[in-house]
Amino acid sequence: MNSKYRGMEAYTPGEQPTDMKYIKLNTNESPYPPSPKVLEAVNCTEVSRLNLYPDPTCKGLKESLANLFGVKRENIFVSNGSDDILNFSFMAFCEGSKRKVRFPEISYGFYSVYAELHGVDYTAFPLMEDFSINISDYMKNDATVVIANPNAPTGLALSLEQIEDIVKANPDYIVLIDEAYVDFGAESAVELTKKYDNLLVVGTFSKSRSMAGARLGYAVGSSELIADLEKIKYSTNPYNINRLTLLAGEAALAENSYYMDNCKKIIESREYTQTELKNLGFDMTDSKANFIFAKSDSISGKELYERLKARGILVRHFDKEKIKEYNRITVGTKEQMKALVEAISDILEERKNEKK
Amino acid sequence: MNSKYRGMEAYTPGEQPTDMKYIKLNTNESPYPPSPKVLEAVNCTEVSRLNLYPDPTCKGLKESLANLFGVKRENIFVSNGSDDILNFSFMAFCEGSKRKVRFPEISYGFYSVYAELHGVDYTAFPLMEDFSINISDYMKNDATVVIANPNAPTGLALSLEQIEDIVKANPDYIVLIDEAYVDFGAESAVELTKKYDNLLVVGTFSKSRSMAGARLGYAVGSSELIADLEKIKYSTNPYNINRLTLLAGEAALAENSYYMDNCKKIIESREYTQTELKNLGFDMTDSKANFIFAKSDSISGKELYERLKARGILVRHFDKEKIKEYNRITVGTKEQMKALVEAISDILEERKNEKK
Repeated sequence: MNSKYRGMEAYTPGEQPTDMKYIKLNTNESPYPPSPKVLEAVNCTEVSRLNLYPDPTCKGLKESLANLFGVKRENIFVSNGSDDILNFSFMAFCEGSKRKVRFPEISYGFYSVYAELHGVDYTAFPLMEDFSINISDYMKNDATVVIANPNAPTGLALSLEQIEDIVKANPDYIVLIDEAYVDFGAESAVELTKKYDNLLVVGTFSKSRSMAGARLGYAVGSSELIADLEKIKYSTNPYNINRLTLLAGEAALAENSYYMDNCKKIIESREYTQTELKNLGFDMTDSKANFIFAKSDSISGKELYERLKARGILVRHFDKEKIKEYNRITVGTKEQMKALVEAISDILEERKNEKK
Repeated sequence: MNSKYRGMEAYTPGEQPTDMKYIKLNTNESPYPPSPKVLEAVNCTEVSRLNLYPDPTCKGLKESLANLFGVKRENIFVSNGSDDILNFSFMAFCEGSKRKVRFPEISYGFYSVYAELHGVDYTAFPLMEDFSINISDYMKNDATVVIANPNAPTGLALSLEQIEDIVKANPDYIVLIDEAYVDFGAESAVELTKKYDNLLVVGTFSKSRSMAGARLGYAVGSSELIADLEKIKYSTNPYNINRLTLLAGEAALAENSYYMDNCKKIIESREYTQTELKNLGFDMTDSKANFIFAKSDSISGKELYERLKARGILVRHFDKEKIKEYNRITVGTKEQMKALVEAISDILEERKNEKK
């Protein structure tokens, strides 16, 4: 195998065990199904047309997204999940004297994977003590900048002013804002793409739009940036979004309020869970995402993860030293979160008794 | 944009005009819908689960393919269309002293695109006068070999013995056989993967399995080759096959005879069309694919393409000098082929009258 890739550490997706039925709070999926129009759109007639290629220009879907964001079709790129778009962006925008990228040390694990894959020098800046991003690290105009907003797994969000400051400070480089979790309480930077040609905002249908299983991501930016991404797509896999996903995406956008209402429910469940976990002695970040990032002084992150798993509840634990006492807990339905709180309360009680 | 990619010529997919209803004989799709089990498998319940990620290990689908080919699951790779697998193969298997690849000059247009994308030196060998592949060009054990069998757009197939000779002659390099069209009359080299660790056979559900719109490709090879491809997939887009496509793929394999029967029908329609076109004075290759590669001394390739399009029939014309007198005509249903023959007959008549 190509030695360039041999030593590379691939991304590790959240586990998907099948030995029993779990409450899955480990991969930040929406607990709600796609909206009624999606279920109507992906019907038997359409399945019977799967013998035909999808539209590689993705015209209808791009138009729907352009309408949603108040931009033109040429400002929209769509691809097979936002991972695909991040990958293409590292290919397209980091080269020559620009073969450098900055991102936070604690963030989405794929940024360093793509940097290594494409031989891009990267600097992963430590977060502040409170896990917030030190924006002065990203104001040097000497490297591409990639920031998840809200960040993962911390859930902390930058303000629109902070994002704009970073974009303004890097006129010669692309600033990529990964908004996978933006609909759960952060401010989107899409409006800024109308003002700044060096800003690319990347989003996904996997979280707030209940379509993780359909694989659909989008990017908003200047027509030049979008044309570059299209060129990479047409040089790798022009038909990479299948027919049914194109239809589902369009249908979902026609029913946007369904998804925004679900986001409100998730925010409520997040607040409920945070209050309950606080009562149980947990420390948490002020998450603006569909997950909670929590630790307790009375149980290690790893042990809590394992004990929850034994009880049929999956959360995500990372072994990275700086965050190993934490767990990232996806916010599910209110019922799921009640079950989680109960399980954690029982586990803490159980441990007290074990120690006696 | 990355200068490495700026000058690159992307692949041009077949046109998909929407100004009128066409008989589409230009992108080698199957004229038949997916089988009944596929229509059952992709149902409302499954659409309502699109909020959940797909299985990134693709366990069920891999098992079905392993059963079909009589190999182990570890010998099977699946990805978002066979283009994806070709792309990954150029990444994984061409580097260092192996950064060289050989393929026929007239073949699938994406091979040179991937070579350029990944900076792999390539030699595109001319075909023989009769469009057959000169296998001695691929017997040097000094470069990766990529051959479409049957080849496109010629439709000509190598025998299994010729493939084996090429594989044996290149023990230090990967030989990739692209079997997109194999089910329409050529011999598959899958059996040879059990004997040769340097052979990778790539296939697709887009042609014989009526799923161009679902995006599903597979590869069969030694567990080492497959592990390399998995590593690339997990370093780019681990969830690249969506839930519904995984289900559709499994369901299709459970009904293999439906698809093999369709292949028989397509072969019959191909033979019918070839006979008719011969009567109209056309020269054709001995195609073993779901398309015909035809030219006539009495009308240029380009003109025939244009006149057919004006009559609502799309075929594929390539501007490449050596094949510009030809058109690649997908074999559709018998009815579609009758309409094609009639249209061509009319066009030839029309031209005679115009000349008078």
